[in-house]
Amino acid sequence: MTTAETRADRRSRRRTGGGNAASPSARSERYRHLVNPFEPIRLFSEDQVEAMHQAALRILEEIGLRVLLPEACQRFRAAGAAVDEESRMVRIDRGLVQAALRTAPSAYDLVAPAAHRTVRIAQRHLAVIPVGGPPHVTDSDRGKRSGTLEDFRDFTKLSQQFDVVHCLGACIEPQDIAPEFRHLETMRAQLTLGDKPPFIYSRGNPQVRDCFAMVRLNAGLSEEQFESAAHCYTVINTNSPLQLDIPMSQGIIDFAAAGQLSIITPFTLAGAMAPITLPGALTQAHAEALAGITLAQIVRAGAPVAYGGFTSNVDMKSGAPAFGTPEYVKAAFGAGQLARHINLPWRSSNATASNVADAQAAYESEMSLWGAIMGGCSLLIHGAGWLEGGLAASYEKFILDIEMLQMFAELFQPVAFDADEIGVEAIAEVGPGGHFFGTGHTLGRYEKAFYAPLVSDWRNFGSWSEDGARTATERANALWKKTLQAFQPPPKDPAVTEALDGFIARRRQEGGAPPVS
Amino acid sequence: MTTAETRADRRSRRRTGGGNAASPSARSERYRHLVNPFEPIRLFSEDQVEAMHQAALRILEEIGLRVLLPEACQRFRAAGAAVDEESRMVRIDRGLVQAALRTAPSAYDLVAPAAHRTVRIAQRHLAVIPVGGPPHVTDSDRGKRSGTLEDFRDFTKLSQQFDVVHCLGACIEPQDIAPEFRHLETMRAQLTLGDKPPFIYSRGNPQVRDCFAMVRLNAGLSEEQFESAAHCYTVINTNSPLQLDIPMSQGIIDFAAAGQLSIITPFTLAGAMAPITLPGALTQAHAEALAGITLAQIVRAGAPVAYGGFTSNVDMKSGAPAFGTPEYVKAAFGAGQLARHINLPWRSSNATASNVADAQAAYESEMSLWGAIMGGCSLLIHGAGWLEGGLAASYEKFILDIEMLQMFAELFQPVAFDADEIGVEAIAEVGPGGHFFGTGHTLGRYEKAFYAPLVSDWRNFGSWSEDGARTATERANALWKKTLQAFQPPPKDPAVTEALDGFIARRRQEGGAPPVS
Repeated sequence: MTTAETRADRRSRRRTGGGNAASPSARSERYRHLVNPFEPIRLFSEDQVEAMHQAALRILEEIGLRVLLPEACQRFRAAGAAVDEESRMVRIDRGLVQAALRTAPSAYDLVAPAAHRTVRIAQRHLAVIPVGGPPHVTDSDRGKRSGTLEDFRDFTKLSQQFDVVHCLGACIEPQDIAPEFRHLETMRAQLTLGDKPPFIYSRGNPQVRDCFAMVRLNAGLSEEQFESAAHCYTVINTNSPLQLDIPMSQGIIDFAAAGQLSIITPFTLAGAMAPITLPGALTQAHAEALAGITLAQIVRAGAPVAYGGFTSNVDMKSGAPAFGTPEYVKAAFGAGQLARHINLPWRSSNATASNVADAQAAYESEMSLWGAIMGGCSLLIHGAGWLEGGLAASYEKFILDIEMLQMFAELFQPVAFDADEIGVEAIAEVGPGGHFFGTGHTLGRYEKAFYAPLVSDWRNFGSWSEDGARTATERANALWKKTLQAFQPPPKDPAVTEALDGFIARRRQEGGAPPVS
Repeated sequence: MTTAETRADRRSRRRTGGGNAASPSARSERYRHLVNPFEPIRLFSEDQVEAMHQAALRILEEIGLRVLLPEACQRFRAAGAAVDEESRMVRIDRGLVQAALRTAPSAYDLVAPAAHRTVRIAQRHLAVIPVGGPPHVTDSDRGKRSGTLEDFRDFTKLSQQFDVVHCLGACIEPQDIAPEFRHLETMRAQLTLGDKPPFIYSRGNPQVRDCFAMVRLNAGLSEEQFESAAHCYTVINTNSPLQLDIPMSQGIIDFAAAGQLSIITPFTLAGAMAPITLPGALTQAHAEALAGITLAQIVRAGAPVAYGGFTSNVDMKSGAPAFGTPEYVKAAFGAGQLARHINLPWRSSNATASNVADAQAAYESEMSLWGAIMGGCSLLIHGAGWLEGGLAASYEKFILDIEMLQMFAELFQPVAFDADEIGVEAIAEVGPGGHFFGTGHTLGRYEKAFYAPLVSDWRNFGSWSEDGARTATERANALWKKTLQAFQPPPKDPAVTEALDGFIARRRQEGGAPPVS
């Protein structure tokens, strides 16, 4: 407000690139537990939602799903589904699906290593998860390259550092680590650099078993304590159309048996692996998700599951996948309605097809985010760092996404409302043509009134130009470096670190666990 | 779909920079009349909206508004308001405001020179207006500079060319034209380069009179025909807090008297010219808008008016205005509720504080757009081309905005829904693990299934890199040039052009009309 403050602020912004990302602010602690106050946007009538649900039940009954894992087929058969041994087609009658929907919980906690990081998974709540899965990483300095463990550690640090990210994640694929050891190293990174709930890939039972053991070691949990609540999560992608492969089926079984969270997400591009129409693509995805959810509930009634939706379209001329399109937003609104129809938490994504963290990346991500968040999603995967349709994780995009997410977190904060907030007296005091800078009504509130941005630069053109005329992407580059430089892992008992190190050393000596496919 | 098509498509995209902006497509004709199918997002309870409305009525009754134009004071007094001659404070009792709200129409047409361009102004409808007002223009080639008539003509051509823009606009200030002739030249540009409803600045009665005369000449309208419907529009900004200056008061009077459209928009930055609180800033803006609407209805009951909302926040450390912030979005949702409370069409904006058409410009504009459009706005001003908090109009930003607007226009298109759209038979036909590219269900729909982007590049990283690794902003640069190069003005009777030229020549000889301030 004063000139001195303005100067100090400008100096500080010059140093930091527009914001201070080194340490989470008191303000950002409000982002740790997000409740979305807005009524979800609806695209379909209730009748249409019911029609899609009924069509999905018909698909499961009449067409069925091919399930490649014999154990999963057996479990389906034992529960009453019709299984064709030869084709591995599993036909699931609606009674079985409906029974599963009765036992699947609509709300539960995802318990974090740090108690204040425990995440509520439920309608109206929003949990953000970072980018997951890209084989490549990219940043403005080093360009695009294969992901390494160092990159995985960097993205884990970034995910840990911002309160608006609620879980750790798959981030990138560390290709410098042999596949049989990769799960051990990514789990070590998550458990030593962070205190948020960790992610586990479903790449076969041996890897999952190792990871569960590490989660228990880290939190000092008995097997029974571990299984009494969700402490980690996995993402199950069906092989659309209508197929569930071996590691995915195994993942559902392993996670359900241990009471851990499966986010069951058909990934369907309309016109490619699903019908080109929105009702068709959503219905097929719904059928596939219902099949996965049913398997989880057959394994253990009450196992925590989330209903994943990831439906987008392709460029029908080139076949290239597209994200953050109008069709993507419509699919998000529709998927949210289907999830609420079966009363399960809905998972959506922050996606873009852009090859660089530019204006396209920003507007496609915003479209995805508004579709997801105003569609009522409970779990937002790829919340920060996704680029290139998921083929690369971007350091700069991560920071830009944090800014966008923090704006939603602010949007969720309730508005104080009473006569003093309306402030007719303050308006009378200032009078026509005056200004409010110096009034008591302003001075009592200005420090906390508004969101202070991370990346956005609101200086005038002259100041901004003098300071190098840097774009948001350039400022994001400075911010991720500053954040990593200042990073301090959360405090940890050295005995726990030692136990984890010992476990990993032993499992490496034993040959690790190759992924199952 | 075929390899040949893919190659042709890639060649074409290489030439055009990702899309074809030269001529509007058949698809984009659907954007000419937009109806928003979504329920507006609400931030406040109905009680809170009513409380703000009541507080605004109290402000008008107890504090009043300073009105600088004697004629406006007289008209207020004649209608029953209490006017203090010395201070020019006008206190308006609620009965007068309520009477005005009863006569202000909630829906009307803004009649365009071309019949198919006539715009419906009403709740649920959305009319997009380009950037208005910046003194500067900027593009990637020439940088930032003072606006000229050539720039005004360029922005008018761009506004005419895209169907998703529904009116012409103030675009930029052509500073190479003397102020007394400026209205003549900007009106000539609008009437000869376009056939959408034109904008007129309220800079005193002589300029407005000239512009009305040109609109009549252009459409061959008698004065009576002209005044029977809105054929042009102006924007009235109050001088917040609580002041209405001479040209703005005169503009309300002139437009109302002639039955033309006034968009009455208090521009309030919370913490600067309005209370720092959201309920306070909205209430003050509401009071100011009500005063302007009341004046219009006093002048002519039934005069078309729109309820403008432009409330944002400042950086409380530096005082710099901010746009597209979480507070901006909340203000938009709230302003939309206040407009619906008084049953008037609501005007909002697509705003950003970014100094360059980068990721920040994109995400701030997306926040503004979602706030405006999902808040239920009927008129979106600064829809395309706004940059730097309104200090510059950007050619590249114009194109990026068109892409964002077209995505909303697509989002509005209804989703076909029946059993064939769900396509259980197509899903059965493809079966597990197959793909939908070649099915009849796909082939019958693929040409029109999805939005084809203007700027977005969905090619893979390799193809995109080979083609120059251009950012969205760089592609937008190519697109505005291509659009301007291909521009053809709508057909026009040479006699009309001659009449307009004759009028302008005469008025220039007479000395034009200096702006009134």
